[in-house]
Amino acid sequence: MGPDAATSVRSAPVTQRTANVIGLGLIGGSIAIGLRQRGWRVHGDDTRPGTETRAVELGVIDAGGLAPDADITFVAVPVLAVADQVGRALRETKGVVTDVGSVKSMVSEQCDDPRFVGSHPMAGSELDGLDGADPEMFNGAVWVVTPVPTTDDVTLAKITGVLRELGAEVVALSPDRHDQVVAVVSHVPHLTAATLMRLAVDRAEEHAPLLRLAAGGFRDMTRIASGRPDIWLDICAENRTAIIAALDELITGLASMRETVAADDRDALLAALTGAREARTNLPGRVVHPEELVEVRIRIPDRAGAAAEVFTLAADLGVNIANFEVVHLAEGNRGVAVVLIDAASSDVFKGGLIARGFKPSITALT
Amino acid sequence: MGPDAATSVRSAPVTQRTANVIGLGLIGGSIAIGLRQRGWRVHGDDTRPGTETRAVELGVIDAGGLAPDADITFVAVPVLAVADQVGRALRETKGVVTDVGSVKSMVSEQCDDPRFVGSHPMAGSELDGLDGADPEMFNGAVWVVTPVPTTDDVTLAKITGVLRELGAEVVALSPDRHDQVVAVVSHVPHLTAATLMRLAVDRAEEHAPLLRLAAGGFRDMTRIASGRPDIWLDICAENRTAIIAALDELITGLASMRETVAADDRDALLAALTGAREARTNLPGRVVHPEELVEVRIRIPDRAGAAAEVFTLAADLGVNIANFEVVHLAEGNRGVAVVLIDAASSDVFKGGLIARGFKPSITALT
Repeated sequence: MGPDAATSVRSAPVTQRTANVIGLGLIGGSIAIGLRQRGWRVHGDDTRPGTETRAVELGVIDAGGLAPDADITFVAVPVLAVADQVGRALRETKGVVTDVGSVKSMVSEQCDDPRFVGSHPMAGSELDGLDGADPEMFNGAVWVVTPVPTTDDVTLAKITGVLRELGAEVVALSPDRHDQVVAVVSHVPHLTAATLMRLAVDRAEEHAPLLRLAAGGFRDMTRIASGRPDIWLDICAENRTAIIAALDELITGLASMRETVAADDRDALLAALTGAREARTNLPGRVVHPEELVEVRIRIPDRAGAAAEVFTLAADLGVNIANFEVVHLAEGNRGVAVVLIDAASSDVFKGGLIARGFKPSITALT
Repeated sequence: MGPDAATSVRSAPVTQRTANVIGLGLIGGSIAIGLRQRGWRVHGDDTRPGTETRAVELGVIDAGGLAPDADITFVAVPVLAVADQVGRALRETKGVVTDVGSVKSMVSEQCDDPRFVGSHPMAGSELDGLDGADPEMFNGAVWVVTPVPTTDDVTLAKITGVLRELGAEVVALSPDRHDQVVAVVSHVPHLTAATLMRLAVDRAEEHAPLLRLAAGGFRDMTRIASGRPDIWLDICAENRTAIIAALDELITGLASMRETVAADDRDALLAALTGAREARTNLPGRVVHPEELVEVRIRIPDRAGAAAEVFTLAADLGVNIANFEVVHLAEGNRGVAVVLIDAASSDVFKGGLIARGFKPSITALT
């Protein structure tokens, strides 16, 4: 590249872009620090005393309050407060506005301004608070935007551009569709985990040690029941219609499963379980080319350092880990590391594991 | 200790004890190699050609076939074949006999010999096959024994003694009670995970990328749906009554949850979710003294080596990890390591993690 080309690329002086973030919790804080690290000036607003000062100290924002001429304002407050704060952002600032709430229909009905599009990043609800703010939280995560027929194209493009700048993979859905999908993949699973957990406790009431049997798969399945109840009250209130519809479908599905078991209809049961197994195996993750990957399962002994050995070994051998999960045995407390690696690395990885006393089981992903 | 004491401890020559294991899969193989490593002579029997030879080569058993004078015979075959093999073991050998099937009522009714007591180790159903045989599989695991009124005390004591020798914590339950409990904590959760998975697939049918939203908590919750369907057909057939009863209770519980959401009854919903959360938090694991432990949550970045760092750091700092899980965020693909450590180590561990760029969140277990 000659000096002319270089000059042309770098010639236009860029004005620093500015963003507002209303609500400096985990999500708001992560958006703010993520944008700052990508060259933005970020103003932050929070009703909790001292939060803005703390956010400035932590380098999460440049200054407190809202910048009226900001290019974009993110509303990252609890679900029930979203509509009010979106209205305020539209009144007090000139740029585009989005929110990050877990339910989208209601806010989309209440805010039909052409400068607003709702959104929902599928990331980060396990850890709480500003101290956990992470500039890379959305890198590789799905971020749903929920345009409506009146949505302004330029607004949508501006907002999705910023989300992509944060590393997110943007998926557009209507607000209703979004709410229906999250009811099935997030809200109803949570209510189901809570119901299963209570069922187990009721069964074990007269003999508490029985819960000792509730290990492994049951622990994985009910873990989401340990989430914060207050968040779920608001979500259930805002997404009531979709949650009820999904609960009805689940109840119908379980009643059908009950009849299949009662009739000892092995063919129907096999079809149901096989279909579910295939769907679970094909659940999309971050993996882009599953046909080139193999799944390595390694039982992890109950001692410190064993998982570390697996990770370190992979790094030592130059084996790239595409995905890593630790799952519990369906029955029992011990873990199994489920690691996805490039198929071309499987022999070297297997050999290294065996040499260190592990017993890997390798399966091609089909 | 003087020479006399040493002599008295070692004076009695011990005849080598002998065990038979029928069925050399993962569980049978682990029992066999576990007993061998504890000084037993082990005979193994398997109908699949070449399995006994392979087991001898691997050091899992001493010899193929059944030893008629064995002290104990373990029957570790698929659920529907258990009763036949228990009968055979009682005919062909003189010692006590137990099986390790996942369902206990039917076999207990069919086998009322005083030399037999059924049992069920809560361990090891994720990995398959003899190659995964692990002498420490049952160390620290719950192993249920299911005596009935006609059970011989000496038989029960002999069998539980051997299970404890393998490191298991033995819990005695009636066969019916066992089957009712595992229906709730294992069988019905499996059927529920499969039903949820199919619901999500049906919803996403016209728009497959929607399953991209099904990450995090949903992945944890449906993972058991990826288990082998054929095993579950037999379990559903053998434990039909208890599974139907538990499915009915779950359906009733979900219908009640539906009404609570429909009525926007926040108090009832809060009570239900809070109760489930407390029960989940108190789920007993391997941890003996939870009041002395703290839970450390550490977000794990999506790169190789991060979890290794956490483990290695703990080992370097002399921090003993009482339990370790990697869980997914309720929404999103990234992991959070949930580590239980001694409360006394929490400051040194936290400091070390922060120094290495992690952001630990520490909670006392109450």
